[in-house]
Amino acid sequence: MAENQKEHKRKRADSVQEALAQVRSIVQKHKLVEGLVHMQDMPRHELVEGLVHKQNIAELQNKLDTLHPADIAAVLEQLPLDERLAVWNLVKTDLDGDVLLEVSDAVRETLIADMDPGELLAATEQLDTDEIADLAPDLPQEVIADVFRSLSVEEREQLHAALSYPEDTVGALMDFEMVTVREDVTLEVVLRYLRRLDELPDNTDQLFVVDRRESLRGVLPINALIVSDTDRLVSDVMTTDFVSFQPEDKADEAAQAVDRYDLVSAPVVDARNRIVGRVSVSDIIDYIREDAETEMLGKVGLRDEDLFSSVWKSARNRWLWLSINLLTAFFASRVIGLFEGSIEKLVALAALMPIVVAIAGNSGNQTVALIVRALAFGEIDRDKARRLLLKELSVAFVNGLIWGSIAGAFAWVLYGNIGLGLVMVGAMMLNLLVGAAIGMLAPLLLQKMNRDPAIGSSVLLTFSTDSMGFLIFLGLATIFLV
Amino acid sequence: MAENQKEHKRKRADSVQEALAQVRSIVQKHKLVEGLVHMQDMPRHELVEGLVHKQNIAELQNKLDTLHPADIAAVLEQLPLDERLAVWNLVKTDLDGDVLLEVSDAVRETLIADMDPGELLAATEQLDTDEIADLAPDLPQEVIADVFRSLSVEEREQLHAALSYPEDTVGALMDFEMVTVREDVTLEVVLRYLRRLDELPDNTDQLFVVDRRESLRGVLPINALIVSDTDRLVSDVMTTDFVSFQPEDKADEAAQAVDRYDLVSAPVVDARNRIVGRVSVSDIIDYIREDAETEMLGKVGLRDEDLFSSVWKSARNRWLWLSINLLTAFFASRVIGLFEGSIEKLVALAALMPIVVAIAGNSGNQTVALIVRALAFGEIDRDKARRLLLKELSVAFVNGLIWGSIAGAFAWVLYGNIGLGLVMVGAMMLNLLVGAAIGMLAPLLLQKMNRDPAIGSSVLLTFSTDSMGFLIFLGLATIFLV
Repeated sequence: MAENQKEHKRKRADSVQEALAQVRSIVQKHKLVEGLVHMQDMPRHELVEGLVHKQNIAELQNKLDTLHPADIAAVLEQLPLDERLAVWNLVKTDLDGDVLLEVSDAVRETLIADMDPGELLAATEQLDTDEIADLAPDLPQEVIADVFRSLSVEEREQLHAALSYPEDTVGALMDFEMVTVREDVTLEVVLRYLRRLDELPDNTDQLFVVDRRESLRGVLPINALIVSDTDRLVSDVMTTDFVSFQPEDKADEAAQAVDRYDLVSAPVVDARNRIVGRVSVSDIIDYIREDAETEMLGKVGLRDEDLFSSVWKSARNRWLWLSINLLTAFFASRVIGLFEGSIEKLVALAALMPIVVAIAGNSGNQTVALIVRALAFGEIDRDKARRLLLKELSVAFVNGLIWGSIAGAFAWVLYGNIGLGLVMVGAMMLNLLVGAAIGMLAPLLLQKMNRDPAIGSSVLLTFSTDSMGFLIFLGLATIFLV
Repeated sequence: MAENQKEHKRKRADSVQEALAQVRSIVQKHKLVEGLVHMQDMPRHELVEGLVHKQNIAELQNKLDTLHPADIAAVLEQLPLDERLAVWNLVKTDLDGDVLLEVSDAVRETLIADMDPGELLAATEQLDTDEIADLAPDLPQEVIADVFRSLSVEEREQLHAALSYPEDTVGALMDFEMVTVREDVTLEVVLRYLRRLDELPDNTDQLFVVDRRESLRGVLPINALIVSDTDRLVSDVMTTDFVSFQPEDKADEAAQAVDRYDLVSAPVVDARNRIVGRVSVSDIIDYIREDAETEMLGKVGLRDEDLFSSVWKSARNRWLWLSINLLTAFFASRVIGLFEGSIEKLVALAALMPIVVAIAGNSGNQTVALIVRALAFGEIDRDKARRLLLKELSVAFVNGLIWGSIAGAFAWVLYGNIGLGLVMVGAMMLNLLVGAAIGMLAPLLLQKMNRDPAIGSSVLLTFSTDSMGFLIFLGLATIFLV
């Protein structure tokens, strides 16, 4: 028992780093041996049969066998490609599918590229249909066809359903592991039925009560099942006040509902109230975390990137963003170009102009962050949008006055030119107003276009505050000073 | 039954917007009546007794009574201050505590400011001790003292424990709603015990098996309890391979473990393996979402901001960030100031220099995003950091060469000066290397200093790529061109 008590510590989050260190040290030993053998020109089959090599492999395999698939995934994420594939080949076949589900898209690509169709088919055999659907986009066409043939008619329908909903909907998140019961039986009967199942699906906190047509009548919480008299009827104990989703519902909304109402699972019903699946809190946590990650990377124009991918591949992953930014920078540069004459006459303008654009960009990004958050909480209606625009403009005005005056004083003191200081104040106020307006309107526009407002807003904002900032500052200076 | 079937739809996420619209329209009517009465100088008590007014109040109260506390919170978030307080006064006292827990910090402040000590004490009475701990930082000192007096000895200890752990630890997330059983009893006995409880705590997917000294021996999954023979012993059915936490563990690590191992609840034990609390998936989801929000706002230097707070208050919330950015902008401006002579001679430099700093800033931000993500997944050790730095520098070199050449060609064509083009290429390559180095080192440094690497990195990065970009570009130009 004392040993068992320690066992559970293995699964703690920090232990992944330990596991990684151990795996790496074994792999390094392994590589070392291979290196030595290579130097001595020993034939490959002797190496494979060599005792030391075998010991290393066995040690690594033993270590991997103690790890949860999610931990194996975490270890693989953190290994350079050659070591990653060496370890991957030692993972038990019946865990392959679970590990593939847990790794990031970029790493999954490297693992799948290393597997032949037979191995891929075997990997999917341990998975539920909703999990196969998650892997499907990354599988070769031929493997998907094989997988499809290996499924039962019901499973094929489920897979088809899961694949038919867009990624950000409840339909794509749901699984099919729902346990359903009838309302006209006693709890005793339900309990007998459950005992025959041996095991309930993960995250089963309630059973779904359906009629003969699979139409959802209510839910029977497991906790109610346990604390109620076993001779009561399901219809007496079940609750009809519960949260349900439809497959077309937005995943974001489902996440919000799971968060708000502290759900562990919820039924998914079609338009005719027939149960078609189940959303569980584990799916939702995966979704929230992946969504946050995609958003964080998307904000800087990146798709998922394997930390150990080649330099060339990584460089290309960053191109789209850099090219867009280069274009907007060229545009801003041309705006400055229009005023080269003024700058030649008053070179202080060149030194001061970055201040005007930087502060408005930063202030606008604050507005973007607040609006994106408000949008995530629920829709901003027309009335509220007008109110908020007015408020953001007022805040920008106040801050423009204060920080513009400080910047203006800086310019005045530095260059002894009060006119320059005043132009600075005016330009900063105006450009902060531009930042507030664009910082407000860009997210709303992107949302209207059904795009993630968190992702494109900042590019639009910087483009505006840069170009307009140079135009306003240099324009005012040209009118009043030069 | 048909009506009940519809009932559950009310709780769906989109229905909050409907509820909001209804609440607002009633409040507006209410305000309208008050306004009319005011015009006619009718005494206040007649108004209060007025039929129309009473009807409105009743209508609003009815609406609120159908809403889940989390939905009331969402409605309150989205109401301007005067309407918010009008609605808040109509919320049933026994829901006050739950609503306070659900609203954001900024809105909570406005609600608490509107309550007297008696109301606040009453609000806490419906809450568990871990929930009181969450509210405590926002309660007046005198109310906390009153609350403390109203608790049992055991609850006082729990509250004390919950308050003694830093916000980002498991100790601050945990609740005390664990159900414990002994290992030497049969499942039949356990079931009889549970039936006496009437209701199990939310998120109870397992019971904790403890010995006489409250030391944790294993966990008994509810599902195993249901599907196993009732005459078996707890010790036979319980599992000893489970995840547990200690109160000092980082909340981030707990969130990662809950995500990885699909947990619904997990025991929290002290150093001597005695059970002291429980972490549930609902707490973890709250934590993940709040953490993501804090980070998103923190990146632009904001603390939680009520969308409807006054202009002045909002303006001040943004000052710290704007002042830091103004300082770094002043610094960059002085760097340009050093080269005013060169700019006067070759004014194209002024138009081209923003391109050099913008692209390096953007490229560096991509590096920051990747490193922050890697840090979130687990520690980056020294060996890996060296590898990654080398890779990021190589990527920056490749991209500097490509995008620098494009920018250089742009400069050459535009100004017919090949030297200017070459300086542009060199400066962009060097500044992209600066961006990669700082983009890599800033998050690692912040992490070392126990600060959130997502929050300060971007300021440090922009400061570096701006100042260094101007210095490199104008410096090279001064050496080679002027």
